[in-house]
Amino acid sequence: MAKKSKIRTEADVLAIDTEELDRLVKSFRVTDGEGFDPDDYPTRNPMGKALDERAEAKALLSDGIAQLSKLQEKLYAQDKWSVLVIFQAMDAAGKDSTIKHVLSGINPQGCEVTPFKRPSDEELSHDFLWRCLRRLPERGRIGIFNRSHYEEVLVVRVHPEILAAQHLPDEIKKDDEIFDKRLKDIRHFENYLARNGTKIIKFFLHVSKDEQKKRLLSRLDEPDKNWKFELGDLKERALWDDYQKAYKHAIRETATKKAPWYVIPADDKWFMRAAVVRALLKELNTLDLEFPEVSKSERAAFAEARKQLESE
Amino acid sequence: MAKKSKIRTEADVLAIDTEELDRLVKSFRVTDGEGFDPDDYPTRNPMGKALDERAEAKALLSDGIAQLSKLQEKLYAQDKWSVLVIFQAMDAAGKDSTIKHVLSGINPQGCEVTPFKRPSDEELSHDFLWRCLRRLPERGRIGIFNRSHYEEVLVVRVHPEILAAQHLPDEIKKDDEIFDKRLKDIRHFENYLARNGTKIIKFFLHVSKDEQKKRLLSRLDEPDKNWKFELGDLKERALWDDYQKAYKHAIRETATKKAPWYVIPADDKWFMRAAVVRALLKELNTLDLEFPEVSKSERAAFAEARKQLESE
Repeated sequence: MAKKSKIRTEADVLAIDTEELDRLVKSFRVTDGEGFDPDDYPTRNPMGKALDERAEAKALLSDGIAQLSKLQEKLYAQDKWSVLVIFQAMDAAGKDSTIKHVLSGINPQGCEVTPFKRPSDEELSHDFLWRCLRRLPERGRIGIFNRSHYEEVLVVRVHPEILAAQHLPDEIKKDDEIFDKRLKDIRHFENYLARNGTKIIKFFLHVSKDEQKKRLLSRLDEPDKNWKFELGDLKERALWDDYQKAYKHAIRETATKKAPWYVIPADDKWFMRAAVVRALLKELNTLDLEFPEVSKSERAAFAEARKQLESE
Repeated sequence: MAKKSKIRTEADVLAIDTEELDRLVKSFRVTDGEGFDPDDYPTRNPMGKALDERAEAKALLSDGIAQLSKLQEKLYAQDKWSVLVIFQAMDAAGKDSTIKHVLSGINPQGCEVTPFKRPSDEELSHDFLWRCLRRLPERGRIGIFNRSHYEEVLVVRVHPEILAAQHLPDEIKKDDEIFDKRLKDIRHFENYLARNGTKIIKFFLHVSKDEQKKRLLSRLDEPDKNWKFELGDLKERALWDDYQKAYKHAIRETATKKAPWYVIPADDKWFMRAAVVRALLKELNTLDLEFPEVSKSERAAFAEARKQLESE
């Protein structure tokens, strides 16, 4: 049943079973959160064979990026849809490196990455969606959120002291259902965006606790990675179970057909990147992306313009 | 004298005279605008040998992009300098395609492109630098302006009716020296940015009138390029000489050591891209870009963190 599709490489020789990968990617897609549990999803590459930093994985990635790049050109020319891609994950799961490896190669003129850090005073003086709204992609563009409005139901939920410090009326802070309400607001917000022509694709890069430990150690060991290590990372790691619970709850409440979550195994970096690129292709291919067609009257004006240029 | 430096390619076999190219790129650099005239600068590839869409040119470009990508990683990690790259040119000179070809391959998380179009009503309600200021790159990032505040002394100068429609007090509109004053303001603005840690690199993609004609015709002829053609382009082309004069004046008044202009021959696309990437490398290499060093006290904290992780 599995069809081997040909992947172009420098040597143009490799054949990879993209169909198996695409089937897996489909199984990572959550469009109905009922009963969702991250524990039911793998963190390691579930493919029969290893896909690591070797020619095959690289070829798969570069082929995917080339396809993505072509779709993006049409998206930009058409200027009709916008695409919002959200990355959420535990520390060191690979948000930054996935963005780097999957989205380098895309024309930066049509792609804008926003890393959301600790909110500024100005941002805290507004509703929690405000700062995200301001960074939404224009039509024709891909907007990447490295972290997002989901932090409001993840880190804020795990750290009650952050909520306590937010500039909110007491009755809101003390509301036991505050996070359920925020999740409902997020669901409505994403529905609204979808209804206005935004394609939403959400990634949860699903890393294991063991793999996170290895990666944090490598940040400590490799001088070029030192700057990525933050002492706070260990404190967050100690809250691992709370975070997993918060993710479970968030995905249960916000996985919809119009704003699906992809729960991507993140322990094998090359597999993760390949899966992310296949998921992006799958989603973008649902849009009717085409270069704009020239109308009859435009065609007449073009003929006139050609005549004018040629007669100079 | 010319040293051949080795360029890595897929096959790792090509040798290109980067020294000759770098010497040329240096000759395109204008740091003192006195007496500047675009007519003194070539529009065609002035290298002894052709550099077109062939393996060599591609190798040169991809080698440059790889170097640029490494510098950008340090820029981002260091979070100290910001880099502002401005592209100005006549229509069809290759602003978009240069951005696409030179800056795809750069991590989009550290690179933000802003195409400046016709100002909105909100933008017109402010001083002319306002909309550019809002899009300046953060520290650690590269900001690309596709068109810029220079439009205010180019298109606005060539079209008095645009100035007439701007929301300005009459005495300012009627001031004969308005463009000289704007240029002075731009020079001061760029000095200010430089003094605050922004590296400024300005490109004038210098295309010939003949080559522009060819490119406009190809936009009319190739269906995938049709969407790039605008009827207004012909009207602007008719004002060619006025635009060249406006560029001459603008570069005379704003070429400084801290904000140099590069006048890049734009008739040969591959040469243009290679020259732009070499210019960017030259400028970024003047900055002290390094991964942040870990201090003694951080090192102690790191040792503690390592112990904690290992003892889990």
